[in-house]
Amino acid sequence: MQRKRLLTGDRPTGKLHLGHYVGTLENRLRLQEEYECFFVIADYHILTTRLEDLDEIEGNIRDVVLDYLSVGIDPNKSAIYLQSLVPEVSVLHLLFSMLISISRLERVPTLKEMIRGLKIESPSYGLLGYPVLQTADILMVRANAVPVGKDQFPHVEVAREIARRFNTLFGPVFPEPESIGGEVPLLVGLDGRTKMSKSLGNVIYLSEPPESVARKVMGMYTDPRRVRADIPGTVEGNPVFIYHDLFNKDKKEVEALKQRYRTGKVGDVEVKQRLAAALNEFIDPIRQRRAYFERQPGLVDQIIRKGSEKAQREARATLHAVLKAMKLDSFRR
Amino acid sequence: MQRKRLLTGDRPTGKLHLGHYVGTLENRLRLQEEYECFFVIADYHILTTRLEDLDEIEGNIRDVVLDYLSVGIDPNKSAIYLQSLVPEVSVLHLLFSMLISISRLERVPTLKEMIRGLKIESPSYGLLGYPVLQTADILMVRANAVPVGKDQFPHVEVAREIARRFNTLFGPVFPEPESIGGEVPLLVGLDGRTKMSKSLGNVIYLSEPPESVARKVMGMYTDPRRVRADIPGTVEGNPVFIYHDLFNKDKKEVEALKQRYRTGKVGDVEVKQRLAAALNEFIDPIRQRRAYFERQPGLVDQIIRKGSEKAQREARATLHAVLKAMKLDSFRR
Repeated sequence: MQRKRLLTGDRPTGKLHLGHYVGTLENRLRLQEEYECFFVIADYHILTTRLEDLDEIEGNIRDVVLDYLSVGIDPNKSAIYLQSLVPEVSVLHLLFSMLISISRLERVPTLKEMIRGLKIESPSYGLLGYPVLQTADILMVRANAVPVGKDQFPHVEVAREIARRFNTLFGPVFPEPESIGGEVPLLVGLDGRTKMSKSLGNVIYLSEPPESVARKVMGMYTDPRRVRADIPGTVEGNPVFIYHDLFNKDKKEVEALKQRYRTGKVGDVEVKQRLAAALNEFIDPIRQRRAYFERQPGLVDQIIRKGSEKAQREARATLHAVLKAMKLDSFRR
Repeated sequence: MQRKRLLTGDRPTGKLHLGHYVGTLENRLRLQEEYECFFVIADYHILTTRLEDLDEIEGNIRDVVLDYLSVGIDPNKSAIYLQSLVPEVSVLHLLFSMLISISRLERVPTLKEMIRGLKIESPSYGLLGYPVLQTADILMVRANAVPVGKDQFPHVEVAREIARRFNTLFGPVFPEPESIGGEVPLLVGLDGRTKMSKSLGNVIYLSEPPESVARKVMGMYTDPRRVRADIPGTVEGNPVFIYHDLFNKDKKEVEALKQRYRTGKVGDVEVKQRLAAALNEFIDPIRQRRAYFERQPGLVDQIIRKGSEKAQREARATLHAVLKAMKLDSFRR
């Protein structure tokens, strides 16, 4: 029996951090055992919101691939591919652009959020088509499953609608991809205010050096009412303890610290030192694998090439079926 | 010195007619001597307004190519190519979609006309992007000139804006294409009410058989007040005389007929019989060339293939320069 197929990925905006691990990467490690996975590094998607500093993209792509490898994504099990290396996706994007209305795309809630969040004055035509390009990614490999956070549900819904519309008009070519959950809520940032996000500068990278981890943890936000160690503190919602819960393997230590914290019997410094140690223990094998892969020249290029070739094989077969179904293939050899 | 490059073309909606000849084809015969011409048969553009009956497209493509050849477009001088056979156009379409705003596209006047004219309830995302896809056609071959009617001026303006935007952001890759005129006003249809148009059923095709030409001419609209041959008639704006002026090579005959018409000394039947004869004399060599080309099996396929290969060579070079300028080429071999 063939495994079901899954597509997900990242825009190459920079090194991945703990928030990515908790939110998605950890989940993908499990999924790659169950599904035939395609992980797209969506460089064209970058252009929907940014046209400057594109010279950072190459480095960002390399970082994302290294981060994938470092956490244990296995290129022998899963295809890691670069969106722009599979031109078929742009043909599907163009064809799918005919299958969805302007007003439907304007109702996608993330569009308004992006426009507001990035203070975009005059959104581009391509930004409106963000979910159409995602649909092309998903349907190009005829994925059955798309692991997404709650905020991305509406995009998968667009993909489902386009798949249905195509199948109704031209015959059954696409499976209707399903959103699959399993992604945990967003990780709070070091500042305790909002999600961990590069642009907010409140992150610990998966490639963060140990001393830098320690320094960042020592500067973390905790219970602000606790100006002295002997004042009882609040554990719930406290980012330091959220991180302890997620990353400290010594559950007994965590329970003891919580107990002492609640009763004003431990200083923030100790709690943070323990967290820094736990985080470094957690990140250590990731850093080691990263160093191992970084030492192999050409490895990233090779993985991208191999993954993109695999994705392109699927894309070609899909496009062939699509153009045949639409009767647009008469003059193709 | 290299010749300037020109792009124009047609959506393959069916056989071409006298309106196409007068409006565009005649002009192209002249232009192909002066420019390096690319004539695109824009099958993807069909999808912006029609998703049904796509099985007619193949026949329509063949008809357009045969009509081109019949009027004297020379595939040894000019590339006749099929849009969908050059996938690079869809990559450029995707990239260019990032360089123009939604509101700018919404202001293109033809969009509103199409939505109104075709009674489109919910315009597709692709319809909004019609001028972006045209821009990709034009800039793909780095055309300097685009012959257009007045109604298409705004589309070339979009192409110029996108070319400028690209060049400003990423460096000089594209010439700014210029609209070139030379297209005469639209030819009135047989019904005398509006332009000659297939969808209005008021056309004479370039491949129309002689007896059908005669029958259609006999049913043409003329001066409606002229219920008898001895009533003086109006020549100006009278479609029968508009056609005489355009297609009857015997200018003396035309002048004599006008004179007699104005003074009530000729019947509509005679004027129309002379027109039918003149039109058949005009169409005869076109029909003969069409028959000659139709007899050669595989010719149309071969011309499309050769033209598309030429267009693709240009497209590949352009895309290479584009991705290099955008620094999106790091992982391409």
